[in-house]
Amino acid sequence: MPLIDNLQFSNWSPKIFEQLNAGGVHAVHATIVYHENFREMVARVEEWNLWFEQFPELIFMGRNGEDVRRAEAENKTAIFFGFQNPSPIEDDIGLVEVCHTLGARFMQLTYNNQSLLATGCYEDVDSGVTRFGKQVIAEMNRVGLVIDMSHSAERSTLEAIEISERPIAITHANPAWWHPALRNKSHEVLTELTQAGGMLGFSLYPHHLAESSQCTLESFCEMVAEAASRYGIENLGIGSDLCQDQPDSVVTWMRNGRWTKVMDYGEGSASAPGFPDQPSWFGDSRDFKNIAAGLLAVGFSQADADAVMGNNWLRFYDESFGPQQ
Amino acid sequence: MPLIDNLQFSNWSPKIFEQLNAGGVHAVHATIVYHENFREMVARVEEWNLWFEQFPELIFMGRNGEDVRRAEAENKTAIFFGFQNPSPIEDDIGLVEVCHTLGARFMQLTYNNQSLLATGCYEDVDSGVTRFGKQVIAEMNRVGLVIDMSHSAERSTLEAIEISERPIAITHANPAWWHPALRNKSHEVLTELTQAGGMLGFSLYPHHLAESSQCTLESFCEMVAEAASRYGIENLGIGSDLCQDQPDSVVTWMRNGRWTKVMDYGEGSASAPGFPDQPSWFGDSRDFKNIAAGLLAVGFSQADADAVMGNNWLRFYDESFGPQQ
Repeated sequence: MPLIDNLQFSNWSPKIFEQLNAGGVHAVHATIVYHENFREMVARVEEWNLWFEQFPELIFMGRNGEDVRRAEAENKTAIFFGFQNPSPIEDDIGLVEVCHTLGARFMQLTYNNQSLLATGCYEDVDSGVTRFGKQVIAEMNRVGLVIDMSHSAERSTLEAIEISERPIAITHANPAWWHPALRNKSHEVLTELTQAGGMLGFSLYPHHLAESSQCTLESFCEMVAEAASRYGIENLGIGSDLCQDQPDSVVTWMRNGRWTKVMDYGEGSASAPGFPDQPSWFGDSRDFKNIAAGLLAVGFSQADADAVMGNNWLRFYDESFGPQQ
Repeated sequence: MPLIDNLQFSNWSPKIFEQLNAGGVHAVHATIVYHENFREMVARVEEWNLWFEQFPELIFMGRNGEDVRRAEAENKTAIFFGFQNPSPIEDDIGLVEVCHTLGARFMQLTYNNQSLLATGCYEDVDSGVTRFGKQVIAEMNRVGLVIDMSHSAERSTLEAIEISERPIAITHANPAWWHPALRNKSHEVLTELTQAGGMLGFSLYPHHLAESSQCTLESFCEMVAEAASRYGIENLGIGSDLCQDQPDSVVTWMRNGRWTKVMDYGEGSASAPGFPDQPSWFGDSRDFKNIAAGLLAVGFSQADADAVMGNNWLRFYDESFGPQQ
């Protein structure tokens, strides 16, 4: 069965590519940019192209579900590009297709702030999807670039689910009823998301976990079981939000971009400004076996565990990355 | 049989797309930029993407030889992108693959001036292929972006033929022994080009024709016959250099770019600064039938005429646009 992690932003290196291989991860949705503009995003694509050329026995660029099956057959990892902010399309709707051609498969309509498209979850006022946002959603639907609302505010997220003609994704977040963090999602959002065929990727980022870095595997897996009972098993997967080997300067870039001269700590704080420690049972890509075992331990059937660990994302990839029918 | 015009830079419009269709042109190598930088080139790609969306019954983006066969089967025209100057890759070798991913299939190492890669045919000193140029040739070989030396100087062209591990192209020029224009090519260049498997596309641009706009169809076709006897039929095709419906401001952009404040007339002159008149027998894409008939009239077999009108370029497309083996 395929193993898919539908969000990582690690400090990519041969070591991490080998860990993905050792962990049997067949596909990763890799964040390649936060606040980069189009040209800066292209520079990130160039870096990935060089890695693909240098490490062909470990990784290759993923473009569709078939590439996940190829990765499984060849014991490699297919890398699917994603943006956590729509900054690479600037103010130009034609860049949506260009970005898709270059490999982008997920794009958040916002990071934490208001974007040209919608409102991020840290804004005081959530004004919903903008005029440009509606046009971009239609264009993303047309070409097969998935709308990701992981960092977006409640109203914007509900509107995006409603406006989009194709299922959307919340690639990396958890239910607020388990851990009421600003970044976690309301029951209403998760109900609307999944009823429209959209996917939730459960996050392993400590700020999204009950008890943070101390969260137990059992607690996490019981949360997944409760989500399956509320929303059905079909629309749930993993989006670990693993930020492995990153210096703290990177979380500062994620939170502050170029938009503020005053430090914004995001989900952290002045006393804990850096990346939080990972829970003991999920330190890197070799630890997905712990989660798979944990799901079985809390009563999942093998088929349901396989669905969460990869089969659901694979179905979603098959249906989402090509042109709109 | 496929009909391929391996260079046009027209002022694209539905009228021209319909003329391509009426003329039965199955593939066009379309120049999309002269002196544009990377981001400006992407804006040209965006314009084409919109045309592909708006006129799917007439045109689509061509990526390989199979797309020519599809165009022939569906009575459409496959559009293959090309650059007449390497300005879109700026000083960044990683952009070679990015441009190929976006659809580029031909790139001139120079326009008329010295570039970062090689020397153009209007320079006083031809210093050959530069250090960056050698790296870019290897990268173009690797990804399947064809080296085009139509506007390059003699030494640079001979060096590019020698350095490139894959056949290159002179997409739009004629033999200097027929018409000794600066832009036409020496017998030595054409011999080396074709012996290395490279292709020559015969130009219909008046400045490249004996007697210019007054050139007869018979003279043109006899020149093709002489070229076939010198270089073999297999490496000859058409690259009309048709610049249909363009305002004269465009030829000024082609010649002057952003590099001079003093008017450069290129192949024109102060008394004739604009686009020259086309010969009467080749005004637009509906006139390729005249050339096909003209080749038969000067003694070509049907098979040899078909080779020049499309089959040779199709073979070259099949062999040139994919990754290096």
